[in-house]
Amino acid sequence: MNAARLDGFLGDRDTWRATHCSIGKAMDVVGTRSAILILREAYYGTTRFDDFVQRVGVTEAVAAARLRELTAEGLFERRPYKEPGQRTRFEYVLTEKGRDLLPAVLALMQWGDKYLQGSRGAPIGLRDDATGQPVRVEVRSPDREVPLTELRLTPNFTEEQARRSLP
Amino acid sequence: MNAARLDGFLGDRDTWRATHCSIGKAMDVVGTRSAILILREAYYGTTRFDDFVQRVGVTEAVAAARLRELTAEGLFERRPYKEPGQRTRFEYVLTEKGRDLLPAVLALMQWGDKYLQGSRGAPIGLRDDATGQPVRVEVRSPDREVPLTELRLTPNFTEEQARRSLP
Repeated sequence: MNAARLDGFLGDRDTWRATHCSIGKAMDVVGTRSAILILREAYYGTTRFDDFVQRVGVTEAVAAARLRELTAEGLFERRPYKEPGQRTRFEYVLTEKGRDLLPAVLALMQWGDKYLQGSRGAPIGLRDDATGQPVRVEVRSPDREVPLTELRLTPNFTEEQARRSLP
Repeated sequence: MNAARLDGFLGDRDTWRATHCSIGKAMDVVGTRSAILILREAYYGTTRFDDFVQRVGVTEAVAAARLRELTAEGLFERRPYKEPGQRTRFEYVLTEKGRDLLPAVLALMQWGDKYLQGSRGAPIGLRDDATGQPVRVEVRSPDREVPLTELRLTPNFTEEQARRSLP
């Protein structure tokens, strides 16, 4: 199984470490099962605290902690709402930053559909609402889907920065 | 911020729950920061235990636990190797199942590049090794990149199965 081709000094893995890696930073924000499942529910249209608790199947404490963190990170916006005769409460609405994580969540879904469902197959199908055609997550250059063995990684930092663990 | 359009009985979220969700199953397997960072290093070409420990920056116990789990789940294969004068040791080589998680990891990277790097920008660039063109993770139907607001979810299970929490 080939790995990605590493350009320039990246090829000598002793000279650099992925200290400012976007993958690590992303996992700092959404690297728990409950965070990802709360986002999943938001993509399904859930906005209210009680619905998140019930549909994700976590405790109120866990849901509150995750929603607080994801709101602080700007993936959700808290909006007041009021039902007749009740006090004002808040719902949690996805921001663009939150919605932009959807490709990562759909890629997890696609992988789970392929490898983790056994004979059951994918529980949820994904279609283009404009055309009805099936939707997939693809790794692409402008003209083609890029085979995962044909990726090349290039450093956007210098070898000296790498030695100093920057950027 | 619109959510996905939900087809059929999915529209009434009281009638179903995502009990066999591929996203949840995927997070059961790779839902920790250290698992994702070990996979990242494997995509960079790392195979040896000591390299994983050093490059991910985790303890030996954490690296051993994650590699054991990911191997048990079939994302890595253990292969013996022997250096002159040393005892036989094992390296960890990505399987196709492991490599197929790469789109999800790259989607996390793309999101982190966009939202979490500040003015620093993306540390690592991603190119098509055959053409040199830039590579992106896209949510696509055959003919176009699908805007995230134009996704439609369809159930591959019946309303009755949903009530019984199946599939």
